[in-house]
Amino acid sequence: MPLTPYKQLEAEWQRLHAFAGALSLLRWDAAVMMPRGSSDVRGEQLAAIETEHHALLTSPRISRLLERAQAGTGELDDWQRANLREMSRQRDHAIATPVSLITRLARATSLAEVRWAEAREKQDFAIFAPHLQEVLQLVRDKASLLGQARGLAPYDALIDGFTPGLRSAEIDTVFRTLSRRLPTLIREVIERQAQQPPLPITGRFAPGKQRALIADAMKAFGFPFNRGRLDESDHPFTEGVAGDIRVTTKLDPVDPFKGLLAALHETGHALYDLGVPREWRTQPVGKERGIALEESQALLIEMIVCRSRPFLTWLRPLLEKHFAVSGPQWEVDNLYRSLTQVRRSLIRVDADELTYPMHVMLRYGIERDLLEGRLAVSDLPDAWDKGMSERLGVVPANAAEGCLQDIHWAHGSFGYFPSYAIGAAIAAQLFESLRARTPDLDDHLVRGEFGSVTRWLAETVHAEGARLTPPELVKQATGKALSATSALRYLEAKYLEDAR
Amino acid sequence: MPLTPYKQLEAEWQRLHAFAGALSLLRWDAAVMMPRGSSDVRGEQLAAIETEHHALLTSPRISRLLERAQAGTGELDDWQRANLREMSRQRDHAIATPVSLITRLARATSLAEVRWAEAREKQDFAIFAPHLQEVLQLVRDKASLLGQARGLAPYDALIDGFTPGLRSAEIDTVFRTLSRRLPTLIREVIERQAQQPPLPITGRFAPGKQRALIADAMKAFGFPFNRGRLDESDHPFTEGVAGDIRVTTKLDPVDPFKGLLAALHETGHALYDLGVPREWRTQPVGKERGIALEESQALLIEMIVCRSRPFLTWLRPLLEKHFAVSGPQWEVDNLYRSLTQVRRSLIRVDADELTYPMHVMLRYGIERDLLEGRLAVSDLPDAWDKGMSERLGVVPANAAEGCLQDIHWAHGSFGYFPSYAIGAAIAAQLFESLRARTPDLDDHLVRGEFGSVTRWLAETVHAEGARLTPPELVKQATGKALSATSALRYLEAKYLEDAR
Repeated sequence: MPLTPYKQLEAEWQRLHAFAGALSLLRWDAAVMMPRGSSDVRGEQLAAIETEHHALLTSPRISRLLERAQAGTGELDDWQRANLREMSRQRDHAIATPVSLITRLARATSLAEVRWAEAREKQDFAIFAPHLQEVLQLVRDKASLLGQARGLAPYDALIDGFTPGLRSAEIDTVFRTLSRRLPTLIREVIERQAQQPPLPITGRFAPGKQRALIADAMKAFGFPFNRGRLDESDHPFTEGVAGDIRVTTKLDPVDPFKGLLAALHETGHALYDLGVPREWRTQPVGKERGIALEESQALLIEMIVCRSRPFLTWLRPLLEKHFAVSGPQWEVDNLYRSLTQVRRSLIRVDADELTYPMHVMLRYGIERDLLEGRLAVSDLPDAWDKGMSERLGVVPANAAEGCLQDIHWAHGSFGYFPSYAIGAAIAAQLFESLRARTPDLDDHLVRGEFGSVTRWLAETVHAEGARLTPPELVKQATGKALSATSALRYLEAKYLEDAR
Repeated sequence: MPLTPYKQLEAEWQRLHAFAGALSLLRWDAAVMMPRGSSDVRGEQLAAIETEHHALLTSPRISRLLERAQAGTGELDDWQRANLREMSRQRDHAIATPVSLITRLARATSLAEVRWAEAREKQDFAIFAPHLQEVLQLVRDKASLLGQARGLAPYDALIDGFTPGLRSAEIDTVFRTLSRRLPTLIREVIERQAQQPPLPITGRFAPGKQRALIADAMKAFGFPFNRGRLDESDHPFTEGVAGDIRVTTKLDPVDPFKGLLAALHETGHALYDLGVPREWRTQPVGKERGIALEESQALLIEMIVCRSRPFLTWLRPLLEKHFAVSGPQWEVDNLYRSLTQVRRSLIRVDADELTYPMHVMLRYGIERDLLEGRLAVSDLPDAWDKGMSERLGVVPANAAEGCLQDIHWAHGSFGYFPSYAIGAAIAAQLFESLRARTPDLDDHLVRGEFGSVTRWLAETVHAEGARLTPPELVKQATGKALSATSALRYLEAKYLEDAR
């Protein structure tokens, strides 16, 4: 008996999955292992496989099979239907971005990235402006094509490319709630923390010892070293596929927590990628559900679980074991205060849980205004400085610590920024549900029983793959609609607690 | 103006080159970096890209373009014509081995490899015999199809797959010369060496220090670490492409020369791969000219240059620097005697320069007899033991140290073994020419000026890519036809020299 159209599609996507896995490994290698002089060779390899991947996805054969399969969905179960929907979504995205546009975007963004780096170094926005203008125009074209194909507003179509099923209306709701409370909360917390600043943590921490500590911690969270690796790179990231996951971190010789927390952040990503249903691993429905949910898993581990007294109580003997440290600055309470300090910083990547959403909301407003023509590129620096002043009360001394600090727009990634803050909100909402179900959760964490967290995430989030939209998934996991209410409750409880 | 058929073919092979480079990186990663549990995932990725590579190569479009290009070779220069010839050769090989045969061979050999390992462990040939029988039958089919496509005898067609342009007639000539002299030479050398055995080299050599020494030596040979890496794996190998070359070695904690010489052997391969003409890098004519020439480059460095007094004179201060060693066993003369000891060993991979060809010639005779039906699989162990006794005067105690010692036949690699000995003969012939042109070569080597060797190899061998057959290349480089005469002169001079 010949395979049904749906089954033939599954076979095609199995090949696409293998191609995507090879691409991921090539990218990992480029960032972690590749000799510095070999990037031209790697570029050719990536381009050849990406082109093949795109050609497969946009082939007439796939479109015909999709049409025929969609005509017979009655025979498909829930997961198969979701899989077919994701196949269509991927094909639509691929077809709506023709090779000519992809090529022009690749050329424009790779030049824009170089000019962005130069502009940042020279603190001169004018160097970057014409290139951002060109990227913006191409991204507008892409957004409009994608929007038409998916029946979405242009900006929503871009968001959908990063977090399928998330819309700006939902983002607006979450951000409105955060905007109302965060400014006063930040002020209260900073005043309160000023009364008892932490003792500084000093010393030098050998890379080998840091690596050993990180491996211990990752193992405690269930990272499978027989199916994954930890390495180092300029920027921490997670690559690979379920079955061979590659995590990196960046070590700081004078701060042992930077490398550790970055590795645990990536471990959150890795556990998600590894936890998708095994039988759907090669299919679109067997993938994680987009960037915002990815961030939620990483932030839940890094920010909520690991920047907590119970985790640090568990961690302290390991710090003693690996670094032979002791003294008042290494007491749990001091470590906790040190890792939860709130600061009005100019730089997003250095920001804490409380101020981070302010950085994101600034960028969200600006990138929509740019995309929808309400803000000219030339006015971006002023809009940025004004926004920073209004939101955080700090003003960049130059564009390098202002609107030139992130590479995202040079890269053409409009619609990406909100994922960070939405991910944080989802993390808090998920954790609130978990805590309600596990009243003695802190006792588990003190004992290093992180399975109480990771098993629940695996069951409620990871096992769902890409079957639901993020709002549907949050609703199913927590019983409540996605909102910032849990996030605010979590932040207030954590940062306004009575000092102990 | 549209591209000519030939130019279109170049573009197609540029893609094939990128695919091949990605495959090579995936294999390197599997052997060096990949977590142990991830081989299933990697298998899927390799299979998907290999299938795509094969499909591209055997597409009707390629065949049409080849026909049209071959009709208009008048407009092509020498290199382009050679390139077109190599394209045809690759296409012929791919078409002659249909996917169904490749699949059956892949299945049969992967099972045979497992059974081979089991049989070797249990010293029981019967476990392996039926699987070898099946592999042999499939290899016969492949040889016959390939032979028809290329107009070659079946065994020659297999050799052509490893070393294009080399024929068994040439191998026979070389082996006949070696067979006449080597048995007596081995006896004379062993008697002579017995009179002055080297002092044993003892100690433990930290991996970090071994790595540093190896890196120093590789740099002295011009290995470009900005375009390549050195790592460790179970079996030393070279992967990657010109522009990103990956070399591995295997360290022995009690023998610092094993890892060093293996790395320098692979450096010989790497320099060849890196030295092909830059403008032809992505094309078939811009590749190394097969296994026998690859071996010649590796053996010339490892065996001829590095197992020499001048090299060891250069190396000695580095040994002192990295390992802080001294004493009579570390004197150049003792090191040299230790690294040139000749032994009648049962195991090919442990063999020295003098006995190695005996191991190869035994296998060459047996695999031809197996392939051409003169020897039954069940009679293989007896034929092996008899051959070892006749050629080296030693008899295996069991099949594990006899006909089960190599994986090649389980892997289906018939026609590969002769490359090792032919490579050694080519190495000696090339080196004789180089020495004739550079009378003070030893002085260069003592000073670590290995560029005198590598530059000449780059100009006479590497720069030719795959334009010539190995015999043509040897003739052009040395002015003489490929033969074993230089090899015998080299071995006699080296091993029968007056003891100093």
